[in-house]
Amino acid sequence: MAAVKYDVLGIGNAIFDVLVQTDEAFLAQHQMTKGSMALIDESRAAAIYSAMGPATEMSGGSAANTIVGLAGFGARAAYVGKVKDDQIGRLYTHDIRAAQVAFDTPAASGGPATGCSYILVTPDGERTMNTYLGAAQDLTPADIDPEQITASGIVYLEGYLWDPKNAKDAFLKASQIAHGANRKVALTLSDSFCVDRYRDEFLQLMRSGTVDIVFANESELHALYQTADFDTALGALRKDVGLGVVTRSEKGCVVIEGGLTTPVPASPIEQLVDTTGAGDLFAAGFLFGLVRGASHTDAGRLGALAAAEVIQHVGARPQVSLKQLAQAQGLPV
Amino acid sequence: MAAVKYDVLGIGNAIFDVLVQTDEAFLAQHQMTKGSMALIDESRAAAIYSAMGPATEMSGGSAANTIVGLAGFGARAAYVGKVKDDQIGRLYTHDIRAAQVAFDTPAASGGPATGCSYILVTPDGERTMNTYLGAAQDLTPADIDPEQITASGIVYLEGYLWDPKNAKDAFLKASQIAHGANRKVALTLSDSFCVDRYRDEFLQLMRSGTVDIVFANESELHALYQTADFDTALGALRKDVGLGVVTRSEKGCVVIEGGLTTPVPASPIEQLVDTTGAGDLFAAGFLFGLVRGASHTDAGRLGALAAAEVIQHVGARPQVSLKQLAQAQGLPV
Repeated sequence: MAAVKYDVLGIGNAIFDVLVQTDEAFLAQHQMTKGSMALIDESRAAAIYSAMGPATEMSGGSAANTIVGLAGFGARAAYVGKVKDDQIGRLYTHDIRAAQVAFDTPAASGGPATGCSYILVTPDGERTMNTYLGAAQDLTPADIDPEQITASGIVYLEGYLWDPKNAKDAFLKASQIAHGANRKVALTLSDSFCVDRYRDEFLQLMRSGTVDIVFANESELHALYQTADFDTALGALRKDVGLGVVTRSEKGCVVIEGGLTTPVPASPIEQLVDTTGAGDLFAAGFLFGLVRGASHTDAGRLGALAAAEVIQHVGARPQVSLKQLAQAQGLPV
Repeated sequence: MAAVKYDVLGIGNAIFDVLVQTDEAFLAQHQMTKGSMALIDESRAAAIYSAMGPATEMSGGSAANTIVGLAGFGARAAYVGKVKDDQIGRLYTHDIRAAQVAFDTPAASGGPATGCSYILVTPDGERTMNTYLGAAQDLTPADIDPEQITASGIVYLEGYLWDPKNAKDAFLKASQIAHGANRKVALTLSDSFCVDRYRDEFLQLMRSGTVDIVFANESELHALYQTADFDTALGALRKDVGLGVVTRSEKGCVVIEGGLTTPVPASPIEQLVDTTGAGDLFAAGFLFGLVRGASHTDAGRLGALAAAEVIQHVGARPQVSLKQLAQAQGLPV
């Protein structure tokens, strides 16, 4: 068996974030569903952007945020995602490489611009995302390098990959190669509306063993099993996947594996500023714990710690060293 | 005399900020002079960017920051500066217009990309800027609309305009038109190295009455008069310009006009995060005070308030309503 070169390799939609602080009225006026991720086309993107206030930009993308978080903890990390070779794509490429993540997916030379998400942050800290996939639509199975997948301990995939037309095939290819090399495959359900779009396929991925680990928040879990009862949903998840991690915002998370159930509390925060990236960074911390062989409790605490860091400032990428943060808390790094 | 449509019109280098938190060693390794603005060419820009960590981007530019601050206080504001019609230029244009600033300078369709400043923020909050002027080099007198200048109560110019080859002529044209319409012209000295480059010309602008109001920080003032003695420098400034405002960081500012000297304390802050934009936002508050007919003390307090807001977060654009901030302090808005 090949040596593990990357602790975790993430595959996702490479998205540049355009963040703005706004009010509830803006969401209502533009018929946005608060807290969700809506896919938008170019003309809707233009309309939203033109109505938005002055913004701050930074690299984002769900799995990419997780992978950058992993690198911040000190893990060896790689990312696969598609940008265009345009100004924004070059900013994106810089940022992820500067975070010490291996990123070698060739940028598209033609086609749509690098994808952008217009993220509206309301005074309560909630984020509402409007994503123009752009070049992320052009991720294909050819972007999956079997050698790199084989050399990665865990392959981490975002449910959002079901949206672009060919990424699903890239996803399945990666999973197959990973399992062929006896690696683990993790999936985040991404968003409750995403779950509504692809419920049957996500369940099939879990039941067929295409994914071994599932990350979901409460609303995604409820959407997956179409039930309002948490315990019912958790019981169903327990049957469908080897390892399940359900995040519950300020209530912390619950880790399930076979008959085991491990609840872990959230990390205390001083001020909720912007929830963008909360789930992504939770997954980063948890996966880091797995990689280091930590207990479910410690993995959950690492996840909670990273999530707490990212929701106390604007944007989905950590602003301090997660490794130092974990060390200061006496957590395994 | 034409009616005043804009309280203040700013002319400056339109620069997109690429901000990164770094350490002292990075500055040393790249031979940067801490706290200064260095002009860099494309190849140095590429080298610095490639060595930099993950960044956050937002619109910047000294005079533009001031003008956005003025609009944030509720002033009617306009900006003249040159971007290219590229992705970054479009982000820039969006942001300044979204801040309710009139911005009609035609974007360059060819030539260099929109200008960028690579801003290194050290743990002490100090910022060190490396600016690639890009399209800002192509601002020319043709970009000055006489009708717009005539309709502006104050024309505000940045000393940095002396760097690009034709902007100086645009500057002089704007000043001439403004004075022809009985308007005021203000200049910020921008940076002590900029003062070193153009000392004689800046003194000439003041002594010839091309500018009526001068903003400087202590190091710029000392550089202008080549003296280490503050009172000597202040005395010289008093003779050279009608209204002078010297900022002194945590010591506040001193306003001089003829025989009058008005010291104003700084606003208290909780935490210094990033000094980028401190002088720009001070000028915004002070000019807003002038526009509203406030006393020098209140104008200085408005300046101090805006500077205090901007240095407590990353980036040179205010994150809250300056108008509400001033109202909360009982200052004139």
